[in-house]
Amino acid sequence: MTTKLVLVRHGQSLWNQENRFTGWKDVDLTDQGLAEARRAGELLREAGFEFNLAYTSVLKRAIRTLWTIQDVMDQMWIPVHRHWRLNERHYGALQGLNKSETAEKYGDEQVHIWRRSYDTPPPEMSTDDERYAGHLRMFHETMDPRDMPLTESLKDTVARFVPYFDEEIAPRIRAGQQVLIAAHGNSLRALVKYLDNMADDEITGVNIPTGIPLVYELDEQLKPERSYYLGDTD
Amino acid sequence: MTTKLVLVRHGQSLWNQENRFTGWKDVDLTDQGLAEARRAGELLREAGFEFNLAYTSVLKRAIRTLWTIQDVMDQMWIPVHRHWRLNERHYGALQGLNKSETAEKYGDEQVHIWRRSYDTPPPEMSTDDERYAGHLRMFHETMDPRDMPLTESLKDTVARFVPYFDEEIAPRIRAGQQVLIAAHGNSLRALVKYLDNMADDEITGVNIPTGIPLVYELDEQLKPERSYYLGDTD
Repeated sequence: MTTKLVLVRHGQSLWNQENRFTGWKDVDLTDQGLAEARRAGELLREAGFEFNLAYTSVLKRAIRTLWTIQDVMDQMWIPVHRHWRLNERHYGALQGLNKSETAEKYGDEQVHIWRRSYDTPPPEMSTDDERYAGHLRMFHETMDPRDMPLTESLKDTVARFVPYFDEEIAPRIRAGQQVLIAAHGNSLRALVKYLDNMADDEITGVNIPTGIPLVYELDEQLKPERSYYLGDTD
Repeated sequence: MTTKLVLVRHGQSLWNQENRFTGWKDVDLTDQGLAEARRAGELLREAGFEFNLAYTSVLKRAIRTLWTIQDVMDQMWIPVHRHWRLNERHYGALQGLNKSETAEKYGDEQVHIWRRSYDTPPPEMSTDDERYAGHLRMFHETMDPRDMPLTESLKDTVARFVPYFDEEIAPRIRAGQQVLIAAHGNSLRALVKYLDNMADDEITGVNIPTGIPLVYELDEQLKPERSYYLGDTD
């Protein structure tokens, strides 16, 4: 039995547009991001997907992407599970900083390491920083405080998302349910690394395009038989 | 300890506008209905509500009302549970018929009984009727087929919603969680009858206005200490 799993990365957010490190900051989609979500919904509708349930993060740019897809597909009724483990990678003390300014300050090479190495996290955010996620109800009510990150490498994002995928999502897929996951660049890379059994230095070179549904056809052991994008990835 | 529970009835739908019996037909909100939902969100935001979780039906007019409120309140992250037991009362064979035409055909008195008696259901819908809910994935995937109604009186709606409230929602309220329920005229009447311990012939005279948050302040036994509408109920 083959089951389809679909991943969608949210489209442009306000801070993407401003070229800032976003991480766990709860910024909304831009109009372009919303249009990308609509297009993803149209592609999935045209391809005839009939989802049984959906997963997303607790961040509104992913939730709004999911809502928009559900609306376009007329599948607003499917159960939706939000979980912080699907959140974007936490960018530590870099959150909110402009990427070019950060490169000027720390040097291109250092910023490249923070952005592209597998296991080097950016500097930690302090818990008394006003940007600290633990100050917000949306995080402290949905998480065990011991899980609250101060920074993350991609490796850390893998380490907190994959167990949730294994325990909560994988059993549903094995039961034949068609699952839609609307999430973020790095939480989806974490999953792609896991599904495709990629090496650490291979996933750092993978870039998942925004708003383009990525379809996995999985066998009963959740091994990919095929994977492909719906629509134009240019 | 007092806990607040908030009920919101969805605003105008396309079939409200066309004066048709809606029941389980999955019609969307009109622009006016959407504006009512936005206003409900604004009232709740201004009153400072901080919800911990939300419940709604599987029908898009209730779901879109909830989404709109969550969006306006910036509480898109709260967990949402959809359940068919919160659906509107099933209107049986009357679903889709124009209310005036139905009154001409069956007489005002008969239609008044179907609409306003507590325990007289309208004629049943046949399972081979193209309108039968069991044909649709949104119902047959979310329900035990034995639960699928062919028609309902308000009494039947009470009988299928109250046990869900008792088992799923009431324990969360007793634990101090602030719950938002976005649902329908008759599923909310069922709940109001239960919370206020109303007689059968009393609830049939109660009309819950659309888009106006109804706040219950409940004690630990879920007995109402107070209940009131936020905003103008005219």
